[in-house]
Amino acid sequence: MTKIKTQKLDFSASGIIAKKRDGKKLTHEEIRWFIDSLTSGDIADYQMSALLMAIYLNGLDKKETASLTDAMLYSGEVVQFEGNDVIDKHSTGGVGDKASFILAPIAAACGVKVPMIAGRGLGHTGGTIDKVESIKGFKTSLTLKEFKNRLNKDGLVLIGQTKTIAPADKKIYALRDVTATVESIPLITASIMSKKLAEGASGIVMDIKTGSGAFMSNMKDAKALAKSLRDTASRFDKRMLTMITDMNQPLGNAIGNSLEIIESIETLKGNGPKDLTDLSVQLAGGMIYLAGKAKTLKEGNAKAQAAIDNGSALKKFKEMIKKQGGDDKVVEDYTRLPVAKEKLEVLATKSGYVSKVECKNMGLHCVSLGGGRKKAEDAVDFGVGLIINKKIGDTVKKGESLVTIYYHAKQKNLVGKIAAEIIANDVTISKTKATTPKSLVYEIKENK
Amino acid sequence: MTKIKTQKLDFSASGIIAKKRDGKKLTHEEIRWFIDSLTSGDIADYQMSALLMAIYLNGLDKKETASLTDAMLYSGEVVQFEGNDVIDKHSTGGVGDKASFILAPIAAACGVKVPMIAGRGLGHTGGTIDKVESIKGFKTSLTLKEFKNRLNKDGLVLIGQTKTIAPADKKIYALRDVTATVESIPLITASIMSKKLAEGASGIVMDIKTGSGAFMSNMKDAKALAKSLRDTASRFDKRMLTMITDMNQPLGNAIGNSLEIIESIETLKGNGPKDLTDLSVQLAGGMIYLAGKAKTLKEGNAKAQAAIDNGSALKKFKEMIKKQGGDDKVVEDYTRLPVAKEKLEVLATKSGYVSKVECKNMGLHCVSLGGGRKKAEDAVDFGVGLIINKKIGDTVKKGESLVTIYYHAKQKNLVGKIAAEIIANDVTISKTKATTPKSLVYEIKENK
Repeated sequence: MTKIKTQKLDFSASGIIAKKRDGKKLTHEEIRWFIDSLTSGDIADYQMSALLMAIYLNGLDKKETASLTDAMLYSGEVVQFEGNDVIDKHSTGGVGDKASFILAPIAAACGVKVPMIAGRGLGHTGGTIDKVESIKGFKTSLTLKEFKNRLNKDGLVLIGQTKTIAPADKKIYALRDVTATVESIPLITASIMSKKLAEGASGIVMDIKTGSGAFMSNMKDAKALAKSLRDTASRFDKRMLTMITDMNQPLGNAIGNSLEIIESIETLKGNGPKDLTDLSVQLAGGMIYLAGKAKTLKEGNAKAQAAIDNGSALKKFKEMIKKQGGDDKVVEDYTRLPVAKEKLEVLATKSGYVSKVECKNMGLHCVSLGGGRKKAEDAVDFGVGLIINKKIGDTVKKGESLVTIYYHAKQKNLVGKIAAEIIANDVTISKTKATTPKSLVYEIKENK
Repeated sequence: MTKIKTQKLDFSASGIIAKKRDGKKLTHEEIRWFIDSLTSGDIADYQMSALLMAIYLNGLDKKETASLTDAMLYSGEVVQFEGNDVIDKHSTGGVGDKASFILAPIAAACGVKVPMIAGRGLGHTGGTIDKVESIKGFKTSLTLKEFKNRLNKDGLVLIGQTKTIAPADKKIYALRDVTATVESIPLITASIMSKKLAEGASGIVMDIKTGSGAFMSNMKDAKALAKSLRDTASRFDKRMLTMITDMNQPLGNAIGNSLEIIESIETLKGNGPKDLTDLSVQLAGGMIYLAGKAKTLKEGNAKAQAAIDNGSALKKFKEMIKKQGGDDKVVEDYTRLPVAKEKLEVLATKSGYVSKVECKNMGLHCVSLGGGRKKAEDAVDFGVGLIINKKIGDTVKKGESLVTIYYHAKQKNLVGKIAAEIIANDVTISKTKATTPKSLVYEIKENK
């Protein structure tokens, strides 16, 4: 772990803001000074937000983006690992995205070291840490030292974000969220990369979601973000594989903490939904390839699929649960997970083909049942959620179940309201069959 | 006095910021809600500063500027006067600008009601309130009610800014100052107009400075600001005269609180410097014209000049001092003003023509002697200052005094340093005579 401090430099916050406001390029030293001063409290939030808006509107070039990433990275602790086989994965976020639970043990079973530092859910997307905490006893709050030791020993570890990793990013992200400066490619790049670089991986696989349920709703923006991430990774001498993947409907069928853990285990057992299995295998294949454990992506994918087929990935997952203090018997016995007792089937009111499954609303329904957070300080219910029984392109008959809602008895009124909303707004049944992509992965690129 | 409150409206801060960020037009209701929420504390400073930067870069149209002005205006108390003869004057600020002390009594002597709410100095420009407070006993902190009564009775009153006038402007101005969003024509317009409209005048004369010592350094920006101010005045049914005036060197000869009061009195006695006398007469002439006390500007100017010549303006000034509790004998006896005892003459090191007198530096020299403020909480020394003995275009012989510095004995080292800087940087002597404008007033326009 290392921390570099810049010497005292004679800059002014408003001078630097004015420069970006006027469309000029900022130097490495200016960016570093600004972020250091923000972290120390010498620059106020209102000055940062003015700079953020100037960056949003006037952009940052590759060099500036790398400087911002660097400054945010060194605002906190930086983990370093030996070797070139430590591979991380990051997703820009989607509804029902539990791929981490599948790809991480697959990659680890194939000899990749997988350091996962994951977040909690906020808003319509769930959080990896919330999901895994539905397994009784699973400990996600290791120190960075414990994290490092665990990784070197077991090759797989999953912890929650620590306060010491990229504190500047936490401050900046909170500001962006309330100042309409979220959707900026250089700012997104610096936010993702500063955290990922601080976590010390030698290579990163990026899952960039695109579609109606994604942050980058169109292919053009997704490609631009992918390129910006690859460029920044190159500047830090890190290998990167970017995959642009479909998020026009929830990934897999389950939404909700325990329900997603069950679906992940089923997928590791080879019984997972096709879309989730395919995406997890390709992302894990990319990690295996980046770690040098396969010569081609195709070979990486084949090894990943084999790790499901021969049970080694499932074994690795079970082992991780045990090592982190969790109840590893859940792998064989799902009744050990706190799934909510009550079920409501949302029935199709007509026959046809499913042409739309609203991502964001489905995520929000899970939140309204208590399965996610409206505010950061909210507690999370592990048991509630939804199973999407019919996905885009599926045929459906009137009276068949579109969605199963898992809820608690006291939520009867709420669940009725949700069911009505699903029928009215969230699942569309059409007369003609919608075309769906053969693979969720639209584009794969490497930065070499 | 009236205060209008909007009903509760369902807007979001980041939604409104995003709209302006994307170059869209904001509605009156959105702007009103944002400013009301800022004033009440429901919108944070960092959200305001993001919006300010978006406005700086994407602008506001006439309608939006009027809405912002309106929202800031009604963030506090609003004074209303009867009749169409209450005329205010505003200057965008310059070094050595003591014209208010001359034009206000002139206009009042010609039957105009002149409500002056003025500021304190900060940075290189001095403040009208600091200057007048160098007159012993002069009370500038009347309530708005006392202010109104005084105006109706005497036709002339001068007070400091109150907390209750346009509090949103105070908050926004403080933010702009540290977020590089000062130089924005719609934001400048709304800031000036919200205060001026809250002060209840029926017409306003605007003195927009241009040149090396002014905020608007070029004619194009000065014209754009003038137009924006006239347009906004029209939307509020106020008459406005904009004058674009020269600020390439300090106005008159004196810089410093007591020194400027003496120069103002001398000007009211008919002995003032030509530039200051001419500008004050033209601004007062405009006020007389707007109040309907003259049919043309020319007639207004003639009446203004007559008020100097016949002593009625001086009498009015003396009367104002007395009514506001000040020592009115200063008009006849300048030793009653606390002028600093020590004098240093800054001598020309060569012969030629003065081709430059740096405005900002001269202002800053006065500040460094204690005559102005570096920070808002600083105390002000009334006695120190500078007299500019030679102005642009003047011939000068080696050994003649360029500037007289008034200082205290303990400031000997400091004053030597200032003298050296004046010679090295602030006053330039050239071989050829620089052309100076015949009149400081470059453009006069009315909004009808």
